[in-house]
Amino acid sequence: MLYSKMFIPTLKEAPADADTISAKYMIRAGMIRKVSSGLYEYLPLGFRVLKKVEKIIREELDAIGGQEISMPLILPKELWEETGRWKIYGKELFRLKDRKEADFCLSPTHEEPITDLARREIRSYRQLPVMFYQFGAKFRDEIRPRFGVMRAREFLMKDAYSFHADEQDLENYYSVIFEAYNRICKRCGFVFRPVEAASGAIGGSFSHEFMVLADTGEEEIAWCPCGYGANSEKAQCLPCENTKEALEPLQEISTPDIKTIDEVSGFLKIDAAKTIKSIFYLADAEPILVLTRGDTEINETKLASALNADGLVLLEENAVYKIAGAHFGSLGPINLKQKIKIIADLSIDGISNAAVGANKDGFHLKGANYGRDYKADMIADIRKVKRGDICPHCKKEKLQFSRGIEIGHTFKLGTKYSKAMGATFLSADGKENLMQMGCYGIGVSRILAAVIEQSSDENGIIWTKNTAPFEAIIIPINYAESKTKEITDSIYRELTQRGVDVLIDDREERAGIKFKDADLIGIPYRITVSEKTLLQGKVEFKERKNPKEKFELITPQEAVEKLCGRQG
Amino acid sequence: MLYSKMFIPTLKEAPADADTISAKYMIRAGMIRKVSSGLYEYLPLGFRVLKKVEKIIREELDAIGGQEISMPLILPKELWEETGRWKIYGKELFRLKDRKEADFCLSPTHEEPITDLARREIRSYRQLPVMFYQFGAKFRDEIRPRFGVMRAREFLMKDAYSFHADEQDLENYYSVIFEAYNRICKRCGFVFRPVEAASGAIGGSFSHEFMVLADTGEEEIAWCPCGYGANSEKAQCLPCENTKEALEPLQEISTPDIKTIDEVSGFLKIDAAKTIKSIFYLADAEPILVLTRGDTEINETKLASALNADGLVLLEENAVYKIAGAHFGSLGPINLKQKIKIIADLSIDGISNAAVGANKDGFHLKGANYGRDYKADMIADIRKVKRGDICPHCKKEKLQFSRGIEIGHTFKLGTKYSKAMGATFLSADGKENLMQMGCYGIGVSRILAAVIEQSSDENGIIWTKNTAPFEAIIIPINYAESKTKEITDSIYRELTQRGVDVLIDDREERAGIKFKDADLIGIPYRITVSEKTLLQGKVEFKERKNPKEKFELITPQEAVEKLCGRQG
Repeated sequence: MLYSKMFIPTLKEAPADADTISAKYMIRAGMIRKVSSGLYEYLPLGFRVLKKVEKIIREELDAIGGQEISMPLILPKELWEETGRWKIYGKELFRLKDRKEADFCLSPTHEEPITDLARREIRSYRQLPVMFYQFGAKFRDEIRPRFGVMRAREFLMKDAYSFHADEQDLENYYSVIFEAYNRICKRCGFVFRPVEAASGAIGGSFSHEFMVLADTGEEEIAWCPCGYGANSEKAQCLPCENTKEALEPLQEISTPDIKTIDEVSGFLKIDAAKTIKSIFYLADAEPILVLTRGDTEINETKLASALNADGLVLLEENAVYKIAGAHFGSLGPINLKQKIKIIADLSIDGISNAAVGANKDGFHLKGANYGRDYKADMIADIRKVKRGDICPHCKKEKLQFSRGIEIGHTFKLGTKYSKAMGATFLSADGKENLMQMGCYGIGVSRILAAVIEQSSDENGIIWTKNTAPFEAIIIPINYAESKTKEITDSIYRELTQRGVDVLIDDREERAGIKFKDADLIGIPYRITVSEKTLLQGKVEFKERKNPKEKFELITPQEAVEKLCGRQG
Repeated sequence: MLYSKMFIPTLKEAPADADTISAKYMIRAGMIRKVSSGLYEYLPLGFRVLKKVEKIIREELDAIGGQEISMPLILPKELWEETGRWKIYGKELFRLKDRKEADFCLSPTHEEPITDLARREIRSYRQLPVMFYQFGAKFRDEIRPRFGVMRAREFLMKDAYSFHADEQDLENYYSVIFEAYNRICKRCGFVFRPVEAASGAIGGSFSHEFMVLADTGEEEIAWCPCGYGANSEKAQCLPCENTKEALEPLQEISTPDIKTIDEVSGFLKIDAAKTIKSIFYLADAEPILVLTRGDTEINETKLASALNADGLVLLEENAVYKIAGAHFGSLGPINLKQKIKIIADLSIDGISNAAVGANKDGFHLKGANYGRDYKADMIADIRKVKRGDICPHCKKEKLQFSRGIEIGHTFKLGTKYSKAMGATFLSADGKENLMQMGCYGIGVSRILAAVIEQSSDENGIIWTKNTAPFEAIIIPINYAESKTKEITDSIYRELTQRGVDVLIDDREERAGIKFKDADLIGIPYRITVSEKTLLQGKVEFKERKNPKEKFELITPQEAVEKLCGRQG
């Protein structure tokens, strides 16, 4: 491909609203343009990368029996009402009416239509298992579209759905998908980690996110060299080590104006780990008291999941006063005015002689001991993971924390959708069973941004081999000069014949501009052809990722061999 | 690919609402399923055909310098207001609001956003010409979605847009696109004709439709063996041959209850070609009288175009009475009460002694002669083409009429959009000029239906070589039998290695079911492997298009060579 024949409108400056490295570079490199908030067009260079990523994903999914299909983007309300998601999705769902005033939405994901297809078409266990996938636009009316294509309102997604006769078969296939996702991430050249994740609006019994590590990532993950990894929202916490002491008597202490954990531990001269935090919630309209150790935070996702509650909100102070007999800052599990369900985090297990609010304004209790002075109705892992926590898997190493960009998410859905929509099949023994289901997404357009967040420098993008729009760029310093043109063309011809995707910068521009553009658009390998080096029969070969001064002078044939022989 | 691994839910019967051969067969062959009115999902077999067609189009457009991009499907109202199409599109446009109540539509086509891109990014003649294309969903809220995917509300389209520095360059490129479209149609295996067409809502100075000939087509085309072809809406009409006679005097005749042309010619015992039809319209709110020869019909598309009118409606009888002094059935160009613009079709040129309404209820005039008795303000080609008309190109042969399915449409837009949206560039001589523009669409999903409308029999689809989901199917009568399996697998291996796309029907089904399904899904070549014929070292080779009894017994190697050596 000739640079002059390709529409690559590079820019010296990114627009002011480009808020991440990837958004800046994708715009500056002429890959994308913004049409409206969260809506982007992909120009030829950006489109090529999309297609390269699509190809990697397609090959890996075809290899594990995936069948490519295409579902409509406009979907009728009725399907979404069957699962309740017409309501649950709220304002994130783009909704519209047709000329007959019938309600539709723009697909944010496709569980409902695919389950509808399955219940219509799959009647027998003989038709199972089956995995369908598609590449297509997804629409989510984000409150704050940002980070370029990373959090857009319309984006390209690969979504896949599998149906199985039983849970074991689903779990086996889940591992197969999991490995395919690992291969996809590797082929994209990512430093990444699959981590356990919360399932959110999609639901199901467990899920994994594929996280590309990048300091600019929106998500935080906790991981351990032993192999464990989880979204920090989801990461499991072990019981804390609490020092056992001889039980002291319960003692009321006047603590005027002492409210926060810091204030309590300072006033009483004790460690925050010797205090208990008491927080009142409304869980599906039932008031509850939640306890966790003073130096930890409650994780509401875990709490809701432990309670199997759909709605979880903080209880307001007036309602708390009626139950506890005290205001915020003096609350605790002892001497409540009303009996109420108490949920305790694992971290309070074994705290001896803790300090808690006295349920009497201006007073705390010292020497509170579980079992003797208070009890919980449920003890569960409901706190946030924190620095210093031990890995729940190997139980040895301290957890590490990194930021990441979620580019894929796999869900073991089980029967969530098949139950809601009545997707059944006749099993081998003639019984009507619910299909077991999994769903598996990859943010295709987001992958472009993720590569750049992980791989760029001050001069521009540094594409990985398999995601690059072109693997190599040949820069003739003066393409009009006959020897330069001859060598440039012959290198191009041979590389193309051997399957390498090459761009020739044939423009009549100064060498400096050509180098700058090549660096900005991030082509991994550069071959510079100049009259000067050709005098020695050599061309300049440089890897994009290496500094300016690190290049080699080699013969054109050596350059070709380097590109054809190299490993990804 | 193994049949058992592919999801092909064939049906014995098509659903009752499948209203064309292609809709019936696409559903019965398990290619598509309907999700809602005008909304379809493409199952694996249908999706494969989409991809084959997409590949043909992509190769042809890349070969003429097309650059593939992708534009959003949700588009902001503001762009559409600049060209007035936010209003013009009416109810066909799907409209929606985002969470901030801003207005958007779902793209029915992309002239506005691409022109917006061009005006933002193209500044100099050096960046021209350029052609962008994309494959993507298009949305049109049809009044009556029908004919399966042929007239759907969401469909897959390839749209392309080119920008040029001057009209000559646009016209040159238009020919290049025209040839590429011809090649695409040929590679799809179509019997087709490119015809001159009316430009409709897209606009521009001229356009061509690529029509696949099929009796079930929605459109009618007029064509001549000399090469001329046009949509019958657009087909040019020559002046009619009118017999010249000595002028008779104008004579009023009482014609009680004689109103239609048939009644007039019957009553007066003259040919309909000796009468004149007089019809009153409102053209952009101005009343006009339109005349055409009694045996012809007015073509409102041509009329609006001749008048350069946006709106054209019939004038209601009360208003007509005020102008003419008579009611419907007695109208004519002579003795009007009010002066009014008169437009005459070429067909009335040279009618001697015609009969016209007298503008007096119950009376007609005989002996009306143009020039002497009445005159028109404009004479133009404004009638519908009809059986018996002579080709306007060779002026010798009679026009032929065929029905067709429009699968592509090319438009020479000129400056229609660049003017409305201010898309200018600096020309070589430093002047600010408007870009010249063309746009070129292909209905990718519609091509699937068009192939089937043109090529099927009572047993199912007959795919053309390049559109077939698989080029060949191997049917082992009993795949469990070792010799059969060995030969089946070896034919499959060799064909696959030589680039032929093959399906093996490995199912444990009766041969009859396998043959029926192979016929229904329409695979062009079938190789049947049975123990019986293998005794003679032979397999059965049959073309789908041939009758049941027409097959050959040849060796497996001969079968392979036939498939690899054959011409498309």
